[in-house]
Parts: sequence; structure tokens; C-alpha cells
Amino acid sequence: MKKILLLLLFTTSLFAQVERVEPPFWWSDMKLSNVQIMFYGKNIAQYDITTSNSMVIESIQKTENPNYVFVTINTKNTAAQDFVFSFSKNKKVAFTQNYSLKTRRENSALRKSYDASDVIYLIMPDRFANGNPNNDSDKSVTEKGNRELPGGRHGGDIDGIIKNLDYLKELGATALWPTPLNEDNDERHSYHGYGQSDVYKIDPRYGTNEDYVKLSAELHKRGMKNIMDYVTNHWGWKHWMYKDLPTYNWIHQFPGYSQSNYRMTTQFDTNASAIDTKNCMDGWFVPSMPDLNQSNPLVLNYLTQNAIWWIEYADLDGFRVDTYSYNDKEGISKWTKAITDEYPNFNIVGEVWMHDQAQMAYWQKDSKIGAIQNYNSYLPSVMDFTLHDAISSMFNEDNGSWDKGMIKAYENFTNDFLYPNPNKLLVFAENHDTQRFNEIYKNDFKKYQMAMTLIATVRGIPQIYYGSEIGMAGNKDKLGDADIRKDFPGGWNGDANNAFTKSGRTAEQAKFFDFSSKLFTWRKTKSVIHTGKTTHYIPENNVYVYFRHNDLESVMVVINNSPESKTFKTNRFQENISKYNSGKDILTDKSFDLKNDIQIEGKSVLILELK
Amino acid sequence: MKKILLLLLFTTSLFAQVERVEPPFWWSDMKLSNVQIMFYGKNIAQYDITTSNSMVIESIQKTENPNYVFVTINTKNTAAQDFVFSFSKNKKVAFTQNYSLKTRRENSALRKSYDASDVIYLIMPDRFANGNPNNDSDKSVTEKGNRELPGGRHGGDIDGIIKNLDYLKELGATALWPTPLNEDNDERHSYHGYGQSDVYKIDPRYGTNEDYVKLSAELHKRGMKNIMDYVTNHWGWKHWMYKDLPTYNWIHQFPGYSQSNYRMTTQFDTNASAIDTKNCMDGWFVPSMPDLNQSNPLVLNYLTQNAIWWIEYADLDGFRVDTYSYNDKEGISKWTKAITDEYPNFNIVGEVWMHDQAQMAYWQKDSKIGAIQNYNSYLPSVMDFTLHDAISSMFNEDNGSWDKGMIKAYENFTNDFLYPNPNKLLVFAENHDTQRFNEIYKNDFKKYQMAMTLIATVRGIPQIYYGSEIGMAGNKDKLGDADIRKDFPGGWNGDANNAFTKSGRTAEQAKFFDFSSKLFTWRKTKSVIHTGKTTHYIPENNVYVYFRHNDLESVMVVINNSPESKTFKTNRFQENISKYNSGKDILTDKSFDLKNDIQIEGKSVLILELK
Repeated sequence: MKKILLLLLFTTSLFAQVERVEPPFWWSDMKLSNVQIMFYGKNIAQYDITTSNSMVIESIQKTENPNYVFVTINTKNTAAQDFVFSFSKNKKVAFTQNYSLKTRRENSALRKSYDASDVIYLIMPDRFANGNPNNDSDKSVTEKGNRELPGGRHGGDIDGIIKNLDYLKELGATALWPTPLNEDNDERHSYHGYGQSDVYKIDPRYGTNEDYVKLSAELHKRGMKNIMDYVTNHWGWKHWMYKDLPTYNWIHQFPGYSQSNYRMTTQFDTNASAIDTKNCMDGWFVPSMPDLNQSNPLVLNYLTQNAIWWIEYADLDGFRVDTYSYNDKEGISKWTKAITDEYPNFNIVGEVWMHDQAQMAYWQKDSKIGAIQNYNSYLPSVMDFTLHDAISSMFNEDNGSWDKGMIKAYENFTNDFLYPNPNKLLVFAENHDTQRFNEIYKNDFKKYQMAMTLIATVRGIPQIYYGSEIGMAGNKDKLGDADIRKDFPGGWNGDANNAFTKSGRTAEQAKFFDFSSKLFTWRKTKSVIHTGKTTHYIPENNVYVYFRHNDLESVMVVINNSPESKTFKTNRFQENISKYNSGKDILTDKSFDLKNDIQIEGKSVLILELK
Repeated sequence: MKKILLLLLFTTSLFAQVERVEPPFWWSDMKLSNVQIMFYGKNIAQYDITTSNSMVIESIQKTENPNYVFVTINTKNTAAQDFVFSFSKNKKVAFTQNYSLKTRRENSALRKSYDASDVIYLIMPDRFANGNPNNDSDKSVTEKGNRELPGGRHGGDIDGIIKNLDYLKELGATALWPTPLNEDNDERHSYHGYGQSDVYKIDPRYGTNEDYVKLSAELHKRGMKNIMDYVTNHWGWKHWMYKDLPTYNWIHQFPGYSQSNYRMTTQFDTNASAIDTKNCMDGWFVPSMPDLNQSNPLVLNYLTQNAIWWIEYADLDGFRVDTYSYNDKEGISKWTKAITDEYPNFNIVGEVWMHDQAQMAYWQKDSKIGAIQNYNSYLPSVMDFTLHDAISSMFNEDNGSWDKGMIKAYENFTNDFLYPNPNKLLVFAENHDTQRFNEIYKNDFKKYQMAMTLIATVRGIPQIYYGSEIGMAGNKDKLGDADIRKDFPGGWNGDANNAFTKSGRTAEQAKFFDFSSKLFTWRKTKSVIHTGKTTHYIPENNVYVYFRHNDLESVMVVINNSPESKTFKTNRFQENISKYNSGKDILTDKSFDLKNDIQIEGKSVLILELK
């Protein structure tokens, strides 16, 4: 019976008058117990609505569009159950809609999330592995599979991800961040998924909602985490609702088209003109992405419930939020708070792509800088874009001058005090929107080693980008991003090179992979890296030395960014080494006597576990 | 009688046992009423000390050096008077020392100071004007006048400054900041004055203490202000006390010499090693400048009293403090607080030479960023070094891209919210330590106009550097700073070119001067510039438009940094121009109808008073 009900819920078109019900079901025992259900159907607003089972309707909200009605039910202290909404006219029931309050997974509210003990592996799902070639095209969506087009749909899918989770595990990754998997029915470039057309539905070219639930289960089976890439700022112009908006101001509308000026500083700039501020926040990201108006409570509720629905439904471990700082500032704060109120341990990292640490720190939860303007985003994590800026140039700076080379990394960390929680910063050398690391550094393995060592051993949550671990490069300036989002070799039947398997890797790929796997696997169990204090020393001669330490253990990291071999005295580090005699390099097993000078080759690293 | 006493005070060597008394006198009715008087003399600590007139000795502090004794007297509710310290051994008076509590100037405590209504003119006194050629050399100091040496003493003096105050007034300057005038008895490069050898005495090559008091009076007579350049961080190695330190830890001592690492970020970096932090703060600025230990209360008292003594004695209007962020962090906060407690309106601008606005904001009084670490410097003003960074490159960037050209100025102001008081920032295009503006821009008058317009019309306190207003250039990389500190033409008898007078200026000098004088003179009475709100607009096509406005008036500033003439619509600025019909350019008197498009020539400015 339950199964039939569920089937009915997913096939609401059986009832001509109810074309959509969102969220399609809810759960009992949620903190968000006043759930606002959106019913969509021709002239649906003209009906009177009642419920079975004494389910309490808290309020009914109608808009200028008669095809929508928003019904808020109060589920507080209400057991899991199936019940029925009846839509009546003149006291006669015209049609009904079944609805379910489900039972939550055990301990769902207190689910753990990702943190600095993780290594996040970021993939573009369309470009990772094509596990099911039968779903590359689907009649319900416009763009069909075509691997010949750099910006086309290549066929990667959830099945392909699941088939390669052991590869991720071997690499030492512990969390997966796929770019959005929801339906994006754009005519072109739909593979990136940031222009969604249905936010309650996995894109059929990736699989089904059930496949996505399975992905979580398969990750959890391996002790790994599933992070959803959530987009609050905009939907795609092919979103079903865009064709028949609930309210005119559901999205930000302008006379003509108005594109964002992208000057996110207007969000706090006390000198900013009102028009520039409005334009940044309300202007559209691109013409194909209508900008959502989170200051409209109906929109905000819709987005909040959708986000919580996915966490609960797909058993998620965290969010990454796209273009976080372009959102309506107050709205996104409420959204973030609602989610973390529901799941107090749930981590959310926001894309705040700025180049000034005070500006980035502004957006982290409980920021003292945000507090200057009485603002609190409630966002637990932001991305360390200034570290990314440093990483993108410093390894080519052989001479460590006053502000060049390793000093750039050092300087980044000198401002950690600006962040309420620097250990919740996402640290990364690249992502799906940036130049590929191996492109900048011409596949220089030594520079790759330095960069990965850095992000694997500093405070924060390391994030790596698919393919770099086997030496993939890619030039953002070519092919409109497609070159940094190339197919992972081995993900497609018939791929000549299969880097997913040891035997399939070229010698060059194996060199990158083996180092990466050793480093990230070592990191997995190193709680001193996950939660230890950092003490760093001003780089001298382009050699950066820092320690991660707690009461029990200490790791000394040395990064020599000079091309020359360097020898240095250890007495400068007394405050960090006085309790120890030697350090053993986790990469080479070589031991170093801390009483002696330490020698390090040019462009290389030491990761010494102190004994 | 009083005069004789004063004479005695200044000639303490008459009493063999008391070689120095500092401060040499004090005032009644001071908030700092417990004044700690330092007596210096051979074995002076072995004497018992008593006072006449029932003057209360609060405490007597001796150090490991028997040649010093610190006597704290309590002058609270004590009338101005002369009294006597008696130094006794075995109950027999061995010698005495006269001392005075003087009467303060009327309203001294509530003296006004400099603020955004001022334009500060910064000079190197040795290089400005030689009013009295007879004091170029002095037998009491080592380095003699020699204008042939680029880094030598050239003979500029207080007399020379006073003689040219009308020139400053004509220029529109309202406050004078001379680099330090206290005695610097270094053997070489003593002209810069930052290695002082006696902080209670004007260098004889500049004049006398009385001359300095006269400078204040002459400035005040013209409605101008006297800002002293105070150095708390270090003295010169020729300081008299350095030869016989009161305590070993009066200065920061190291085994061998330890130079500061200059990494001021260690002052707040939570990851910094203790040794790096100590080295920054306690290491010496250069070998010739012993680093004062402000964490020693005796040192701190000495510096506090000395600073207050100068304000009260020389009737000062403000301080500029050298290398502010190199000081002992807690010590300098106490010093700053003590001075501003004594003089609540007194402005002090600290040299916090950093390149990150959060880091600079850390040091301003009541900073929310400093408060993250429970730190409050109490420093009213810091210098806008990031604006200086922008000014130093942006006028050569003809194409305004995402982060080039006028965007750099715009971006600087987007972070104003980080500062507790952005209108107390010192704004400047150059100073005595930087490349000269006209050097960077090859004496391009149009670029000079843009830069001066910017600093004259944005929030904050403009500071200009002597000579640029007549087109002086100078290359910091030549001659060890001397090239940016060249003699002002006309300051020396026999100078072929006298730019102090209208008739003496070359056509090129007159072009620079006339523009500067017009701009700064206009600014003098423009309260909307001094205290108005700022609204700025994202630069488009390298044209930056901003408004300074209050309820009564509005000024629209347009800076076109593109080499091409630009025409733009005014509708974008509705929120700032709706109340007005036209704008009159204060430089050309040309009127612009605000309903029409506005055209502006390449590399030029408009300063429109809206009507």
C-alpha cells in the first residue's frame, strides 16, 4: 500500500488538477514542522482545501497566479503517516492528493558532516565515468549525449561514480563533491548543472533520485561522505516554474535584462550606491539563469525545504553552495540558519570568491567582521580563495623575496585570526572554475608535490579536483571551460587509457597517483593534522617550515620552493622541537636528527613525524 | 626670579650631582598628575630625597644603575609653583634641584587637533628652507652642514619654515608635519631625525626649543596646525642615555645584534612562532636605532611624559607616530591612551605600513578587528597605505579592466567599513619614504591632477609632500632616499630658482602650484568634503564617479583615467543628483546640465558643485 502511495506521489499527473506537489513528502519529528507545501495545477487556487487524519492546516497562501497554492501544515508532535488533501468547490470534493509524513532515519538530525578530517574529491559528474551508456540521452530532456562536443553531455553518471568509489578510497579521498546532479534542461552546456530546471529531480542523464540515494549509501559503506552542490542564487531559464511564475517577484525582474556587476563588495560597502548594490545582488548571473528572490518568503521557504528535503531524503553529509555571496544577504542567512538549526553538525561551504581575507571572513558564521554590520550568515565554511591565489603563482617564484614565493602562503595564514574558524576553510589548489594546477605548472611533478603537501597539511578541509591526481592538465582559456573539465581517462567503455586501475595507468599517471595516495591516505588517520594547532615560521630563502601539533604528537612540514638544495639550522624551531629528537619523513621513511642541520632538495618537501 | 629658575633648570650641569632632570618641568592641573621625574647624576641613587612646599613624593624607584633615580610626585590639586628637591646623605643636604609646576595655557586639555578639514604639508626640515645659515653646524653635534652630500645636513631649519609659512597658506595647506626636529647626533644621515639623541631638545641645527614654540605660534597665527613627528619605537645609538642605561632592559638587548624581521603581521598572527613575534617587535629597526622596551613601565612613563611635555610646552596640534606597529603592542596602546586621556581631541596618526586593510584597521582606535583579540590601540588615525598602493600604479593603467585603473581606488573604499573611522585615515600619494609621485608618473601633470583631486575629495585627511606641488620628482632607488628628499628650490640663499614666490616659479612649477593652490584652497571651506557622506559608483570604462554629500550640499567628482575623452549618461546617478539641476566645475567654472550626458576629456577630472 505504501509503495502504491509513493508511486502516486511521484506521478501526480494522474490527477489532472495537481501537476506538482513540492516537497513531494515530508517527515515527522522535524524541527521544520510547519511545512509549506506548494500545489501546482490549473486554477488550483480556487479550491477549498481540507485534510484527513486531523492534520492541521496552519495557513493557506495564494498568489497572483491562480495555478499555485501554498498550504502550510503543522506537523509538530505528529506521527509518521499517510494522509490526504482534499480540494473542494462548493463543498464538493473535486480531487484529492495523497501525502506522507515519513519516519526519519535514526539520528538523522545529529548526522555527522565533513570537516578537516576529510579530503574532498570534486568531480564534474558528466566528465567522470559513464557507468550506464543507456541514459546518456533521455527523451524528457533536450540535450542529448555527444562526446564530440567539448561543452556537450558526455555521459558520465551516478552509476559511473559508484563503480569508481574504490578508486577514490585508494586515493585517500573521504568525501565526494559532485557538481550539481539535479535536472538541467538547458539546450546547451547543460552538463555543468548550475542552471537547474527541476530541483526535486536528479537529471535523467545522471540517473534517478533513487540512484542518488544509492550513491550516499555506497559512499557511507566505504566510510565516505556525500556533499551536494546546492544552488540558491538562481535556477535555469528552463526551470518548469519559470514558464508560469507563482509571483512576479519570484525572480528578480528588470525592465530588459540586467546582469550582475559581480562586485560582491557592494554587499557590505558603506559607500556603495543603492543601484550598484541592487544590481550585484539582484542582477542575473548570466542570461540563462533567472535570479531567485530570496527576500520573498515563499521563495525562501521553497529553497529551505528543498535543501532539507534532499538532506533527509538522500542521507547527505554536507552542502557546497554555489555563488553564495551573490544571494540576497538576509535571505541566504535565514536559509543557512534553518538548515543548520535542523542539522546542527551539518557543514555547508559557501562559494565566496573574493580576494581579500576580511571580505571572505565576513561570510563565515559568527564572523566578528560581519558583526560590524550586525550580519551573521550562519555559514560554517568558506573557501580559502586567497590561498588559491597564492598557490596559483608562488611555485613559479624561485626566489623568495619580501613578498614572493612561499611568503605568499605564509602571509595567507597570518590573517587566520580574521576567521571565526580557520579550520573550517576549504583549502584547494584548483576547482572546476579555475585554471588547472597542472596547466599553470606545466605538469611539473615537484610543484604538484609541494602544492598537495601544503593543502594536505595546513589547517582546513582539503579539496582536490578530479584528474589532477593522475596529472591531468587543462586550460580554462580554451574551449570555454571544457578544457578544465575533460573526461577522466578510463571512465568510458573503450577508453584506451584507464587511469582508474593500477595496471591501466601510464608511468607518469602512476607517479602522480602514488604520491597523492600516499599523502592523503597518511592524512586520513592523522588527528594532529585534522585538529592540531599550527605554528609557522617566516620563510627564509623560500623555505617554509611549519608545525601541526597537539599534546600528543607533532608534524614538521618543510617546503623548499627554491630550485636549490637548502640546509638550515633547527635551533630556530626550539619552541616546537624541544620535546623531540628526530623526525621521520612520511614520504621516504628517512629519519632526520633534530640536533643536526636539515638538508632538503630544491623544489621538494619533507613531512616529518616528530619522535 | 622665574626666569632665573628656568635658566637654572636648563643648565643643570651647574649642580655636578644632577646632570639631567626629565621632564625638566611639569604643569599643575594635569590629568597625568603623578609625574615621574628622572634624575641623572653620578651615584645619585644613594641620596635621600625630600621636597619643599609639602610636595608629596608618591614613590621613589631605583634601578640597577646607581646614576638614576625616578621620583614620582603627586601634583593632584596642587597649584603652579616652584619648589626644591633636596638630596641628602646622613641627613645632610648634599645638593638641591629646583623644579617648577607651571600654569597651563587656557583650554589646553581640550585643544583642537587636525582632522579631515585639514591638508597636511609634510616636509623634511633639513631640506625645506635654510632660514638661519649660522646654525648649519653646531659644536655640540657631530655632523656639520654640507650641502654637497646628498645624505648630509643641508641646513634647513625652523627659521626657514617660519619664513615660508605664507607660502604654505597660499598653497592651501592648513597643517604642517615636519619630520623629527629633536636632536639626532648621528655621525651621518642625521638629517632625517629618526635616530634621536635627546628627546627633550630641538636639534641645534634646526634651532632651539623656543624656536619650536615660536613655530607653533606662527602657525596658529595663520590658522594652521603644528604636528610633531614622534618616535616611540627607538632612539638613536648616540642618545645620551644609551651610553649609561638606567636598566639593562631599557632597550631590547640580544646576544649579538638582532634586526627586526619587519613582519608586523606577527603582532596578531595566531599561528606565529614566539621567536618570530619577539624578533619583529623587539628586534632593532636598523643597527643605529636601539629598540626601546615599552613593556618596562619606566620606559613607558618616560615616553608618555615626554610626549605630553612637548604637547603642553610647544602647544602642539597633533602627532604623527613613526613605525607605530613595531612597538610593544600593549605598551604603545597605553602610551596612546595616556595622551588621548590627557587631550581628548588630540589626533595621532600612526605609521602602520601594511598592505591589507583589515591589518591596518586593526590598529585604529576601537577597531572591531583589534577587538577580535581584545586589543585596542587607542590610536585615532592610521595611514591609508592601500590607497597609496593604488595611487602608485593605477594612473598608468589606461584600460580599466576588472581590477585595473580606477577600480583600484574604488576597491580601496569598498572596505571602509573595516575601519572604525575612515574619515580619520590619512590619505596621501607619497611621503618621505616612498617613491615620489612625479617620479612614478614622469611629471605628467594630468596624472598629478587626478591624484591630487582624489586625495583632496575622498574621505580622510589629505597629506601632501613638499615640492610635489611645484612638480618636484625624485627617485627613491637613487642616493639612498636623498633623491626623494631634495632641497626645496628657493630655500637657500643664492638658489637660482625660487619656487616659494610667484615670480620665482618656472612656468612648469607655476602650472603645478596654481592647480594645487586652487584645489586645496577650495577644499578649505568645503565642509561637505570634510564631513560629508561618500557615495561611489563602480568605475565604468576607467571613469570613477563619486559624490560627497550632506543635507545642504553635494559635490560630484569625476576622474577619467582613460586617455580617451568619455561621455556618460547621468541617469545612473539619480540617487545622488535628483535634487540638483547642474554642476559647476570648481577648476574651470564650466557648468554642466545634469539632464544631459556629461563629457570629460581623457586623463582629467571634474569637481562639480551641484546646484
